[in-house]
Amino acid sequence: MSSQKTIILGLDPGIADTGFGVIEKIGNKINFIDTGSIQTSKDKEFTTRLKEINFNVDKLIRKYKPDIVGVEKLYFAKNVKTALDVGQARGVILLAIIENNIKPLEFTPLQIKQAVCASGSASKRQVGLMVKTLLGLKAVPKPDDAADALAIAITASFFNKRLV
Amino acid sequence: MSSQKTIILGLDPGIADTGFGVIEKIGNKINFIDTGSIQTSKDKEFTTRLKEINFNVDKLIRKYKPDIVGVEKLYFAKNVKTALDVGQARGVILLAIIENNIKPLEFTPLQIKQAVCASGSASKRQVGLMVKTLLGLKAVPKPDDAADALAIAITASFFNKRLV
Repeated sequence: MSSQKTIILGLDPGIADTGFGVIEKIGNKINFIDTGSIQTSKDKEFTTRLKEINFNVDKLIRKYKPDIVGVEKLYFAKNVKTALDVGQARGVILLAIIENNIKPLEFTPLQIKQAVCASGSASKRQVGLMVKTLLGLKAVPKPDDAADALAIAITASFFNKRLV
Repeated sequence: MSSQKTIILGLDPGIADTGFGVIEKIGNKINFIDTGSIQTSKDKEFTTRLKEINFNVDKLIRKYKPDIVGVEKLYFAKNVKTALDVGQARGVILLAIIENNIKPLEFTPLQIKQAVCASGSASKRQVGLMVKTLLGLKAVPKPDDAADALAIAITASFFNKRLV
């Protein structure tokens, strides 16, 4: 039995909302620490929004000092415009992580669903319910991006070999 | 007649190749200063490539101290995967620009072709030839990304009201 504590940050990138979830893993147990969403206003310049996302991810990393950071990896999007926007958010998020000398772990939506729900076809609702169960929360975290980010953090806790 | 000198940097974002072009505008005349391509190896980690792009754009800005930076704006791409990749490169490029307190000007491929060739349906070859002519170069700059970046810089020199 290991008493080593590992802090894990999960991030679900987006221009308007970047979900974040922080958990700790001690031995085989995972505990909830924090969750929420970095939101930027569509009334602001696009470049200002990118700067805010980069700044706030950096701030989260400095605050929680995660040992592991997991980020959702996308291979598809609703359309090319969405892909370009999410890509730009993802670029400044990955930069904030590597500037803190952390090598991000990347997971596809399929990997996340399989890790958290044992099924690649799990619905968003199922993922939310499993996050609630696995972390012993009273309710499914809101907004969706926050629940997704916690699912990413949980996935990272399973995938990371140091934790097995 | 104004003798004010304005330095303009044009950038054509990409993960493997980010073209750059530097020109100066004195009065109504534009002069070539530098061009080239920031290249990253596909053998490196994706996040390392993003960091290199961000670092090298920052270095270019510190070296040439541009008054204006123009960046190509995309609304479409070959597919969603390409859009995500270009988006991530573009995100870290825009971040390098705004971290240097410069507000980038963004131009669509259509705007660039219209500005440089007076035709939105101009071919890549036509754009290259006009860049050569407008800057009084001996040959069309190579690689394509470098010529495109110079076309973006020329477009920025036309669009910016301070220069009219």
